[in-house]
Amino acid sequence: MTTRMPEQVPIDILAQFERVTDYWSPKVVAQVNDQYVKVARLLGEMDWHRHADEDELFWVLRGRLRLEFRDGVAELSPGQCCVVPRGVEHHPVASEECWIVLVETVTTRHTGDRATPQTRTIEEQLA
Amino acid sequence: MTTRMPEQVPIDILAQFERVTDYWSPKVVAQVNDQYVKVARLLGEMDWHRHADEDELFWVLRGRLRLEFRDGVAELSPGQCCVVPRGVEHHPVASEECWIVLVETVTTRHTGDRATPQTRTIEEQLA
Repeated sequence: MTTRMPEQVPIDILAQFERVTDYWSPKVVAQVNDQYVKVARLLGEMDWHRHADEDELFWVLRGRLRLEFRDGVAELSPGQCCVVPRGVEHHPVASEECWIVLVETVTTRHTGDRATPQTRTIEEQLA
Repeated sequence: MTTRMPEQVPIDILAQFERVTDYWSPKVVAQVNDQYVKVARLLGEMDWHRHADEDELFWVLRGRLRLEFRDGVAELSPGQCCVVPRGVEHHPVASEECWIVLVETVTTRHTGDRATPQTRTIEEQLA
């Protein structure tokens, strides 16, 4: 029996959502350089937060995501993404269930500078 | 009239493919931290190459992509991705037209260590 290297085993993105059992609880599906690619299911809202030194990419696969900023808003539909730059406060709101892909630095804490009940450790996100 | 910040303007990934006029000629659609997110249309094959210091993520949206390695192969269907680790030689083959998203370091030269007729500058990829 031959052993396949990790790069030889395709990662099915939608199948990765089966690992997601809670809302606002991302799971890491891949690492590329110093970034994690994560999947998450969202419903309701996350507290206002910012990441001082890290950009965060949101890509909606299903449902809709409203990203509120202090001076505006982005409404994301399936197939749309946006990058929240470092330092920019944002308030994610999913009034219906939303499936997203995130790209963010391996060190990024997904609830930003503050620990909240929604905060998940990297170990939980890798599980 | 209010000015919307870049993060407030959703990026429609499929619409970005309208910028892609040649095969194997990626276009940058976003930057997140030190990584570019790019879209590309592939048909035929690219020379064997490697990126000494950079991982490269391939995510297939349409068609199929065969990534050949010296010791195996990955066959990617729509919705599947894989990460080619730094240093690993690979040979992308698209026997039918394939639309992909790439995530790679801003410094990555997409044809690897060698300049080939398929090589595109970052300026061309940003255009």
